Amino acid sequence: MFSPKPIGHVRSPYTNTSEVPRGLGIQQRAEGILEILPEFEPGLTDIEGFSHLFVLWVFDRSAAGFNLISKAPHDGRGRGVFASHSPRRPNPIGLTVVELLRRDGRKLHVRGLDMLDGTPILDIKPYQSSIPQEKLRSGWVAEAEEKPEAGSKKG
Amino acid sequence: MFSPKPIGHVRSPYTNTSEVPRGLGIQQRAEGILEILPEFEPGLTDIEGFSHLFVLWVFDRSAAGFNLISKAPHDGRGRGVFASHSPRRPNPIGLTVVELLRRDGRKLHVRGLDMLDGTPILDIKPYQSSIPQEKLRSGWVAEAEEKPEAGSKKG
Repeated sequence: MFSPKPIGHVRSPYTNTSEVPRGLGIQQRAEGILEILPEFEPGLTDIEGFSHLFVLWVFDRSAAGFNLISKAPHDGRGRGVFASHSPRRPNPIGLTVVELLRRDGRKLHVRGLDMLDGTPILDIKPYQSSIPQEKLRSGWVAEAEEKPEAGSKKG
Repeated sequence: MFSPKPIGHVRSPYTNTSEVPRGLGIQQRAEGILEILPEFEPGLTDIEGFSHLFVLWVFDRSAAGFNLISKAPHDGRGRGVFASHSPRRPNPIGLTVVELLRRDGRKLHVRGLDMLDGTPILDIKPYQSSIPQEKLRSGWVAEAEEKPEAGSKKG
């Protein structure tokens, strides 16, 4: 395996998990900065050409350990951790797709953050292609979205 | 930070990097299995409902270390590691979107593998939504695809 090290940190408007909009089908709109450490700046070469990026990051503010089953907020039923984006995972890695607004040196201005301020970034990769929407099935998330009385607020 | 540990391993037809189809815009079609370790099987609860999954894994067969700039095979120009899917990254984590064909206990039969047989899996997350194709820009990859004489073979 390997020893994870931050390549930079997230500058986000959120300082507490409770501030991050949650709920099924929510669209994250928060803007902020992916601030890359000076020694990694050459790795950003040519990144301006991509409209969207994958960001891999560490759930560094979650309690240690993991839950293989956790209750979905909208119905209280247990879901497997690998069928959810719960933070308490065997490897506490988060994945967020952000829109790249502009690059300013080693600062990437982005939209769509759901991370807390100061979150360590592990990796950034270009988002190149999408699965066509008509080929996607979203399991329990789609079922829950079809029952708005049980679902959470949408943004 | 944290100590990465495998939650399972990839069963893939590829045993050597040279066998994995490469090139711009290539569509991975290889089928195989994500074999989750017995102790993590409860974490797969309800995963059958999703058509596509994100798989996070370790580039365990790449030489240690990283290159912030590496040459793209199609034109020999240097690209930043964060604007590419090069294996030699500061944190050697791979990300692949696969189609879930079926679940058989702790074995997930999937299509779209680009990992080698035995690759350690770090995490699986449901793929829930796509960026509409018309909103995506793919930078140097798109430019290279527009010059077929310089591009690689497509699958």
